[in-house]
Amino acid sequence: MSDLVDDLLAGKHSALARVITKIENRSPGYREVVSALHEHTGHAEVIGVTGSPGAGKSTLVDKVAARLREDGDTVGVIAIDPSSPYSGGAVLGDRIRMASNAGDMDVFFRSMSARGSLGGLSTATTDAVTALDAFGKDYVIVETVGAGQNEVDIVRTADTVAVLVPPGSGDDVQMLKAGILEIGDVFVVNKADLDGADRTVQQLREMLQGRSTAGHHGASGAEMAEVAGTADDGGDAGEETDAWEPPIVETVANRGEGVEDFLAALDDHGDYLDRTGGREQQARDRFAAEIRTLLREDANSLLAAELDRQGGIESAVDDVLARETDPYTVVDEVLAPLRDSLDDPSDPRE
Amino acid sequence: MSDLVDDLLAGKHSALARVITKIENRSPGYREVVSALHEHTGHAEVIGVTGSPGAGKSTLVDKVAARLREDGDTVGVIAIDPSSPYSGGAVLGDRIRMASNAGDMDVFFRSMSARGSLGGLSTATTDAVTALDAFGKDYVIVETVGAGQNEVDIVRTADTVAVLVPPGSGDDVQMLKAGILEIGDVFVVNKADLDGADRTVQQLREMLQGRSTAGHHGASGAEMAEVAGTADDGGDAGEETDAWEPPIVETVANRGEGVEDFLAALDDHGDYLDRTGGREQQARDRFAAEIRTLLREDANSLLAAELDRQGGIESAVDDVLARETDPYTVVDEVLAPLRDSLDDPSDPRE
Repeated sequence: MSDLVDDLLAGKHSALARVITKIENRSPGYREVVSALHEHTGHAEVIGVTGSPGAGKSTLVDKVAARLREDGDTVGVIAIDPSSPYSGGAVLGDRIRMASNAGDMDVFFRSMSARGSLGGLSTATTDAVTALDAFGKDYVIVETVGAGQNEVDIVRTADTVAVLVPPGSGDDVQMLKAGILEIGDVFVVNKADLDGADRTVQQLREMLQGRSTAGHHGASGAEMAEVAGTADDGGDAGEETDAWEPPIVETVANRGEGVEDFLAALDDHGDYLDRTGGREQQARDRFAAEIRTLLREDANSLLAAELDRQGGIESAVDDVLARETDPYTVVDEVLAPLRDSLDDPSDPRE
Repeated sequence: MSDLVDDLLAGKHSALARVITKIENRSPGYREVVSALHEHTGHAEVIGVTGSPGAGKSTLVDKVAARLREDGDTVGVIAIDPSSPYSGGAVLGDRIRMASNAGDMDVFFRSMSARGSLGGLSTATTDAVTALDAFGKDYVIVETVGAGQNEVDIVRTADTVAVLVPPGSGDDVQMLKAGILEIGDVFVVNKADLDGADRTVQQLREMLQGRSTAGHHGASGAEMAEVAGTADDGGDAGEETDAWEPPIVETVANRGEGVEDFLAALDDHGDYLDRTGGREQQARDRFAAEIRTLLREDANSLLAAELDRQGGIESAVDDVLARETDPYTVVDEVLAPLRDSLDDPSDPRE
């Protein structure tokens, strides 16, 4: 186990691949590995890329990865498909090698699927980002296949979220519904050479103007800065209006057009996060959410096991139906060991 | 405490009112009261009534309650408003007294609101039904104000669910979305004297024909009976096709028209539940769901308290940010007392 961690930290891609497989499958020992890697994280720039199918996400991600490599940065890409129970590893894994990065293992590409629960996939994505970050990748790109609520949850793992919109798709309302508009830090109208692209840019601009500042991704940090600036008149007046206004970038990814603009927009948002304290605030929010999620999942599985040990839910229901016990008493009994161990002052039995 | 329970069981309406207030407010001791009452339950026929605002639910419920009283049955009504944080006790409480049951305390009427969480309101409704059942009411009617997902969860408490549809409302698609169509055992087109009533009945009939048998409320019991009949050729052949087809009843509640038909439809469904074992199956499903919900809620609040005792989520996040610990380790530490007490074989620390 510690060999695997050491090998990953030493820069062996085979160890990185094995760790991510372990994470994806929730294999025994994955928790200790992720725990051990955590202290080596916090250096990667994490970019989320989402948008409806056909928006050109994979093409743009390939071009971005290639461009970053040319600048000397290392890149890891995780492609997530919440709708598929199968890992598309082989197929998707070939994709990037057939593109412009053939043979360049510094673009490490992996796909992950919804083998476990969807909640689990979101946690697994966070863990995979941890692995790539600890490995030392300068950039980690989390790319989703679709653009639904599940994708929104997954892409929140990122520091900066890019939302791709195909021109003239009429997808705008759908995206609003899925909460995608709220989480975008950078919007991209890809295939900008197609008819309808101008109209899509215009529609997006109107929707973004109507978007509540409070709702957008990374707003908490910016708002804290604004509030601080307002409260302290001696502060930097510029901070008072330092709210992030998501740019709309036009690209033709398959011809490489607009990729520089897109990267510049990502950099701008990264600078903004550093300037406003938004990066730390996002990290705080993410860690707090992760702790709460893990706590809930672990406690539920522990208590389900305890319920089984006490005879199982069916046996408990039999007794409740026979009026020999009642749901509150059943639950108190299952939780008794926990209450005892915590010396809970609200114990109803005391 | 035990006086309160004794008084309720002795038939004192004032004790019943105090118990339901305790349940609604989650006042200290409510759990013990509900626990103590459980063994006296299982005799009431529980009817859920839902439908969009303006469908005429309250008028129909008043007429039904009056009709049941005329037959010598006792009735309790709980009206639930998930959208309001305020108890409408006074206003709604007056309603039934101003209707046809003036002065008749055997129609006990109470409203409950969303003071706690909505999940809590669903649990509180179950507890209030327990109180009315233990009191000895022959019929308990759970009436919701609206017709959304929250109402669906609440109305599942009932043995038989009636869904009211106003004529020509075009609400059909909305109701489908909210899952209302799936849970209705009896459908009522009220205000059937209005224009568009025939068309609404026709639309409902078409939708119900398209409805999957598997999805409807109380299907599990019926399906078990069907499977049993198929597996055992010597069984009653009639059982094989004994699936419930929800009737559509037309009423003009404010004139009392169709109330008899509605009551007959409710009785038919009650008979069906008894014949197929559906009543017990529904009770089993409800108790299992209740145990799981209580277990989750109680464990979450216990663990939140334990996290606070260990310094709180903010302190944990500080340490995770500083890379002094990581989310998995934080969660393992919070859960350590539970794992120790349960002697959990999957403990990652062993």
